Parts: sequence; structure tokens; C-alpha cells
Amino acid sequence: VHFADRLFRAVRAKRNAVVVGIDPRLEQLPEAVRERFPSSRAGAAGAIRAFGEAVIDVVAPLVPAVKFQSAFYEMYGAEGADALWKLVQAAQRAGLIAIVDGKRNDIGSTAEAYAQAYLGEVLVGNSSEPAWSADALTINPYLGWDGIKPFVDAATPRGRGAFVLVRTSNPSAGDLQDMLAGDRPVFQQVASLVTNWATPLRGESGYSLLGAVVGATYPEQLAELRSAMPGVPFLVPGYGAQGGNARDVAGAFDENGLGAVVNNSRGITFAYQRADLRERFSQNWQGAIEIAVREMVDALAQETPCKRL
Amino acid sequence: VHFADRLFRAVRAKRNAVVVGIDPRLEQLPEAVRERFPSSRAGAAGAIRAFGEAVIDVVAPLVPAVKFQSAFYEMYGAEGADALWKLVQAAQRAGLIAIVDGKRNDIGSTAEAYAQAYLGEVLVGNSSEPAWSADALTINPYLGWDGIKPFVDAATPRGRGAFVLVRTSNPSAGDLQDMLAGDRPVFQQVASLVTNWATPLRGESGYSLLGAVVGATYPEQLAELRSAMPGVPFLVPGYGAQGGNARDVAGAFDENGLGAVVNNSRGITFAYQRADLRERFSQNWQGAIEIAVREMVDALAQETPCKRL
Repeated sequence: VHFADRLFRAVRAKRNAVVVGIDPRLEQLPEAVRERFPSSRAGAAGAIRAFGEAVIDVVAPLVPAVKFQSAFYEMYGAEGADALWKLVQAAQRAGLIAIVDGKRNDIGSTAEAYAQAYLGEVLVGNSSEPAWSADALTINPYLGWDGIKPFVDAATPRGRGAFVLVRTSNPSAGDLQDMLAGDRPVFQQVASLVTNWATPLRGESGYSLLGAVVGATYPEQLAELRSAMPGVPFLVPGYGAQGGNARDVAGAFDENGLGAVVNNSRGITFAYQRADLRERFSQNWQGAIEIAVREMVDALAQETPCKRL
Repeated sequence: VHFADRLFRAVRAKRNAVVVGIDPRLEQLPEAVRERFPSSRAGAAGAIRAFGEAVIDVVAPLVPAVKFQSAFYEMYGAEGADALWKLVQAAQRAGLIAIVDGKRNDIGSTAEAYAQAYLGEVLVGNSSEPAWSADALTINPYLGWDGIKPFVDAATPRGRGAFVLVRTSNPSAGDLQDMLAGDRPVFQQVASLVTNWATPLRGESGYSLLGAVVGATYPEQLAELRSAMPGVPFLVPGYGAQGGNARDVAGAFDENGLGAVVNNSRGITFAYQRADLRERFSQNWQGAIEIAVREMVDALAQETPCKRL
């Protein structure tokens, strides 16, 4: 089944467009998780894996997808890489779409290796097997089409997808993305490129398997890009800890509440640290996650076209 | 010691600016290496590690630096990540500068995690330890300064560095990099940004710990960027298999033959497959590597300011 059809079928089934970002910062993990593991790299990797599995248990009935920020796994070397692979599998077994946020990019022949690693299969001896088997990977457009095409080629036959950075959510996003190129900033030019690449790759939902990353921290641009990029699914970071709220992301959706998924990482997974939840959930950090997810689902239903899901 | 001072001291000591790219494509590894390992993922990882160690043995006396293309290790999951970490250490033990070509990029708080993983130390329990401990990492500029600064911060106190993509060597590099931004293409604007970021970070050599990736496949632009980016060390990919030759990279160097290092991956490591070497080196693939390195060293000495090293 086509990636966008799978993604938006999951959005419809869960009646929300929330992606829970599982970005384990060791020093922020609940004490109840950390204390079970030794103070070593293998212990750190064990703790982030246990944390991720517990998050998956809570959110799998509630949301369509999870996103793993690769950096927080790579931090722990080979042990961290192993934790990421196990968590991608755990998420998929729990019925979630698993997105790896790796922002990979390289020249064609190397992009092919990344594409095989994350979205395809890798030849080992006489057979092929997946290295990470993500449902989708984030990628960076700086190298142009021949750095994007290998991901499309690996994703297409497997019902997988990729999200290309268009407008990021960080304060200095504009250094490069806002440079005026002709009459428009670079990110709008990149939006045109991505739309052109994505258009032939649409599924039955009308959306493509090639999507775009568009940050929640620039709400007006989000709405402009939604209308400039028909058929391109958006992965929207920047909700929660980075400052974006439900009203800010309203423009990301089409009139049916489809066309976008919105990521929230720290605001959900570390909700047990919130001043208003800390006491009540001191012995039940997973309960705080459920509260935070339900708050976000409700906020999106109130402030965005997700009410029609 | 400052990264650029270390890099160019190594260039002076070896009297050449060659970086050997160790990008192990399993299917291209010499049969003599492959046959020693089982047909499994662990076997694949073992083979690429053994190959890399053998390459390091040959090239350590000859060149200043090696570069590991992360994708070819990530392909084999956690086992591949472990092989990369072991090879970085083996290269450093052999006196080589070890560059990891990961083209990483993310928002500030996540870039910090990548920076710790590749250039710094990571907190595990009560102590910190390196995950990859590369001497330098390649990074992507699409997110602007707050996605670059964490790498600078991790690299500076440790004598390490980073190379920012400016002009890549692939055919579709121009899709984004050649867009006209004002009176200049985007890559020239990025060159200005990188120069501004790099200038305060210069060492005694006059070169910065923040460098630029500028492809060999656009020779005129290489010379233009050399003069537009004083004090910014260049990492030049695209030599050999991608089509660049010694004359093409001449413009990357300053008048003393410093200021740039030139990477060649397949052209060196898989030289045993060359029609003119295949028979002679059928039982000695490492001998073919030595021949290919010496050819490149000689070509650079003839066609570029490296003759003054």
C-alpha cells in the first residue's frame, strides 16, 4: 500500500494527526527507568530503549505515528543504533507508522546506501535484509534531485516514504532558507522543486510518498506552503517545547484535516516534569504522557480542520 | 592543538594533501577479504572492518588523512556502526586524521547531540565518553548557524573541526546550489556565510577549524571559492571515480600547497579492479592501493601547488 494512503488511513483510524517524537535525552529520563540500568554506555542504550518501549505502549492506541530523532540514538554508538532498530520494530509491531528523523543527504551513489539502510534492504552475503526498516525518513535537499531519487526508489515498492526539509523550525532557519532567490525566498523555491518531484508519486489519497518538513514556528508560511504544495504531505515539527501551538499548525491541513502530521517530542514524552503534572504523576510518568497526548489531540480538534477526522 | 594546524602539519609531514576515502561497498571488496567472513550482517560488518584496517595499514605511512562515508557503515546497522567506531580509532592510532563524512544537520538542541556523538563526549551515567571521536565531521548548512554552532563548540576545545557543504560534486548539485540569490548563486551566498562563521576560528596556520566541502567536479568554481573564502580549509570530494583530476583541483590550494585536502575513495581502495592493475595485483589488492595513492600524490605534485610541500 502507498505510503501516504497508509499514513492518512492511520490518521483517520486514530482520528488525529499527532506524531509522538521519541527523542530520549538520558538526563531527562524518569528516575524509575534510569535506575534499572548500569552507569555505562550499554546501560544508557538499555535505558533509552526501555523508555522508548514504554512510550510506545502508551501512545500506540492513541496516535498514528512516532518519530525517532536519530541523533539521540547515535549518541550511544553501536548500542544506541541497536536501540533505534529495536524501537522501530517495536513501534511497527504496535501498529504505528515509524518515522526516522535522520535528515540524511549525499551524492547519488551514497544516497543509495542510506536509502537501502533506512527504507530498503541491504545485501549481506547471499540475501538481503533491512538495517532499520523505517516507514519514512527525513532527508535534506541541498544536493538536489540525484540525492533524493534513491530514497524515492527504495521507498516506492515498499509502501514507504520520505520527507524533505523545506522550512525548518529553528531560529536561524532563515540564514539560508530566507535568502531571496529571484522574487521568492529559497525555501519557497525548494517547495516548488519538492512539489515537482512529489507530484508523480501520489497515491489514492491524492498525497505523495514524498513529503515535506515544514516547521510549526512559522504559521503563515505553513499556510502559504500548504496551498503552494498540493498533494505533498507535511511533517510539522516545532509543536510544544519549540513554541508552536494548535492554532499555529492549522494551516498545515487540508479542509478534511488530512495532508499533515504534527510532531511533539519533549512536550509529550517528558510531560511528567511539567509543574502541573509533576506531583500527580511522580509515580506514574507514563500517565503524564497519556494526558499530554490527549491534550494535544483535543487542541488540534478544536483549532484545526482535524475536527473533521 | 587547533584542528587546521594539526591537519596542515600532517599534510606537510606527508608532503601531500590526499585523503583516502574508505567507503566499503561489500560487493566490491576483494574476494580474499570477503571469503574470511560468514554470509550475515555480522559477517558483512566484520568484512568491512577488516577491509578498512587493511587499507589503513597501507595508507598510514603515505597520506595525512582518511575519510569514512558513514552511509556504508550505517547500512549494516549496529554492527556497521561498531565497525565505523573501531576504524576511526584504528586510523587515529596509525597517526591519521580521521574524518567522518556524515553530512549531519538538525536544529540546535539536536545538533548538539550529533556534535557530542561525533566530535565530543556523551554522558553515560556518571562519566562522559566519546561515541565516535572523529577528528572532523561533514555537516550540512540548510538550517543555518544554530545548526552549525554546536559542532564548533564541541570541536574547538578538542582540536577537532567540521566541514560545511558549500558546493557538492554531484550532477544535480545545481538544483538548489545554483539558484540565483541576488546577484550570486546560493552556493556563493553559503560560501559567504561559512567564511563569516569560520573567520574567528582560525589557528596559527591562518586556517579555521570550520572548513568547507567544495567538489572537484566544478574546477572554476573551486578556484573562485578559494579566493572568496580566505582561511577556510577545503575538503574536496569528486576526485577519481567522480571525474575530477589533479588539474581540476589545482585551484583549491593556496600558493604553498596548503588550504585544501582532496578525497579519493573508489579510485584508491578499489584500484585492484582497474584493467591495468587487475592481473598484476590479483593476489595483492593492497599493493594496488599503494600504486593508486602514489599516482595521486604524483599527479597533485605535478599539476597543483602541492609541489611546494
